[in-house]
Amino acid sequence: MFENVFNNVKTKKPLVHNITNYVTVNDCANMILATGASPIMADDINEVEEITSICQSLVINIGTLNERTVKSMIKAGIKANELDHPVILDPVGIGASNLRTETVQQLMKKVSFSVIRGNISEIKAVYDNSATTKGVDADESDLISLDNMDSAIDMAKRLSLKTSAVVVITGVIDIVTDGNMTYIIKNGNPMMSNITGTGCMLTALIGGYCGANYDYILDATACAVASMSIAGELAYKRLQDTNNYGTSSYRTFIIDEISHMSIESLNKELKVEAR
Amino acid sequence: MFENVFNNVKTKKPLVHNITNYVTVNDCANMILATGASPIMADDINEVEEITSICQSLVINIGTLNERTVKSMIKAGIKANELDHPVILDPVGIGASNLRTETVQQLMKKVSFSVIRGNISEIKAVYDNSATTKGVDADESDLISLDNMDSAIDMAKRLSLKTSAVVVITGVIDIVTDGNMTYIIKNGNPMMSNITGTGCMLTALIGGYCGANYDYILDATACAVASMSIAGELAYKRLQDTNNYGTSSYRTFIIDEISHMSIESLNKELKVEAR
Amino acid sequence: MFENVFNNVKTKKPLVHNITNYVTVNDCANMILATGASPIMADDINEVEEITSICQSLVINIGTLNERTVKSMIKAGIKANELDHPVILDPVGIGASNLRTETVQQLMKKVSFSVIRGNISEIKAVYDNSATTKGVDADESDLISLDNMDSAIDMAKRLSLKTSAVVVITGVIDIVTDGNMTYIIKNGNPMMSNITGTGCMLTALIGGYCGANYDYILDATACAVASMSIAGELAYKRLQDTNNYGTSSYRTFIIDEISHMSIESLNKELKVEAR
Repeated sequence: MFENVFNNVKTKKPLVHNITNYVTVNDCANMILATGASPIMADDINEVEEITSICQSLVINIGTLNERTVKSMIKAGIKANELDHPVILDPVGIGASNLRTETVQQLMKKVSFSVIRGNISEIKAVYDNSATTKGVDADESDLISLDNMDSAIDMAKRLSLKTSAVVVITGVIDIVTDGNMTYIIKNGNPMMSNITGTGCMLTALIGGYCGANYDYILDATACAVASMSIAGELAYKRLQDTNNYGTSSYRTFIIDEISHMSIESLNKELKVEAR
Repeated sequence: MFENVFNNVKTKKPLVHNITNYVTVNDCANMILATGASPIMADDINEVEEITSICQSLVINIGTLNERTVKSMIKAGIKANELDHPVILDPVGIGASNLRTETVQQLMKKVSFSVIRGNISEIKAVYDNSATTKGVDADESDLISLDNMDSAIDMAKRLSLKTSAVVVITGVIDIVTDGNMTYIIKNGNPMMSNITGTGCMLTALIGGYCGANYDYILDATACAVASMSIAGELAYKRLQDTNNYGTSSYRTFIIDEISHMSIESLNKELKVEAR
Repeated sequence: MFENVFNNVKTKKPLVHNITNYVTVNDCANMILATGASPIMADDINEVEEITSICQSLVINIGTLNERTVKSMIKAGIKANELDHPVILDPVGIGASNLRTETVQQLMKKVSFSVIRGNISEIKAVYDNSATTKGVDADESDLISLDNMDSAIDMAKRLSLKTSAVVVITGVIDIVTDGNMTYIIKNGNPMMSNITGTGCMLTALIGGYCGANYDYILDATACAVASMSIAGELAYKRLQDTNNYGTSSYRTFIIDEISHMSIESLNKELKVEAR
């Protein structure tokens, strides 16, 4: 499964333009390199159109947005749309401030996104701009479990049909849908929420996968999601094999796992259901 | 000792608003997560009031301040004061430029701080705006030793009484005082000064501790300081157990140690004197 | 070889002012500390002159330049020139946008650089502003091999004579020249291109070396280049000794190697040719 989209990243080595936050940017760049793609971070309004033009995809992450960079995000997004490059949105912390909510509204009005990825609280907020979000993490009341999975899938599908974007909700269970077909991915490890940026890193990975797979956005995105969750599992196993390791080692190990993951090891660990 | 304030962080999981520098921001976020709290970084003037309102404490670190973010620091600080949230100041490099010195003066005029943390040169500069600082590290002539400890404590106490903030001076010996009671913490390892951001990470940790312990700011701060210094010791021991490790592994290990520190292991290592 | 310049860094512990990008800034700071120097990052136009005045060298890296920071780079560069401090330029991604190309042109018009470091595509672009660059990595067609090494050396020498700067081209083979004498360094490991920031980290290291060696810029720079490439080799060996490690561990190990490198271990591994 996913062999084609996986190999395309390694052989095409797409260049990914990132307008992202300054908290997790280094991990995002290293993640993109680990998967075989190449990152470039550039956010000045006078260069974002040119930079996006030499890339194969664009990732917009609003984690530490400001007035200056929001303008650059919009300009880059419009240019990427003109060039038919996949554009990926990570609406970090939407709902935590009007600035974030309005920025996402504005972005979605002016830019067509290929993929939108968030936790359940963020995707809810994108969907109806009415959810409460507690900062940048998902509300505990919102966590996807077997009980509410069907309603989460339903919301993701409706958002996907409304926006024409593949929608990703990440959590204990990950949902990836284009409105018609849905992948439910049951890999991952709870310790992933104890380090900053696992969401951002995944969105960056999706940027790499989509840049190499214009015609297979759903599968490319699902493969990126599966890679990240499986890396979280394998890194946790490695952590158990050593003494005394903690969250910072775990972060290192997750990126390590992405860097030497093969399609065979991915498929060996993959727990996916397609509906 | 410190059992109450330690456990409060784990159970209350406070959300900490950080307006901080782009050098050590990732380590600060991971440190806050490692201790059981949750970080959010946001510095646009149009959202800092809202962001601070959903948080339980605010950390202001001037490490890479600029005209735009200084305004956001002030606005966020005033809002946090209105809400009675603890506000923690890290006056990184005060004295190295007029901009830094004047920013701290302005911040202290407009915002009430619960905690001010710096090395001895920085706290001196806060105290009398006349000390010389060599960049962001403490002057060697300023290092706290048994010889000058009493005068350092004296200065910390006077600054505390003047500002109503708990004052922390970190170095070989750490001093934490509210003007009346003083903790002298003798943990730590000299190698901590060979990596960037141990000061910033500690200030972030203090943000986590104070966000969970509004009514015990002195003890919360002292426990954060002790945690960091003990993590530095334990990480150094782990470094000795392995071959060939250096400063970057040490950084990883320090965060690791915070992530699996128990109140028992903290108390086992703690070398503290209360006056 | 290089004993003098190596020891000067350890004994003089120069303070290095960095105006750099937010992607690799933490690694740059840790690298400077690992080699025995001290970093300060400051980019507000109201403080860069003062900050540079208390430092011994200035590193300008345009990785995530913006309108605000470009002005600070120029102001800091002019001040550093007045003070006869070495100024080092890393023209990250020049050629990828007009903003980058024009910024480098403007910088070179207004500031005298002691060292310019880039990959072959970047140095080509500095040289004739006509090369194509694919983002921030070197074009594959541009990689230095034994076949085209002579023409690369020739270009580096001409750029050096034109600018009076020591010119460094890094790649599989590293070239360091002052127009008269040229060091060809054959250390390194291809895996270094799988992590972000090895170029930036090297430029930061050069800042440390030049800050301690005003009168030996060529040798100081060559020693920094050799240190970095040898750290890449030794870190790779350490990676082979352990199971399952990947690119993020490799990044950690490279900084570790710099932190415990001795002049003896450097000379043991050094593969250099001087012309």
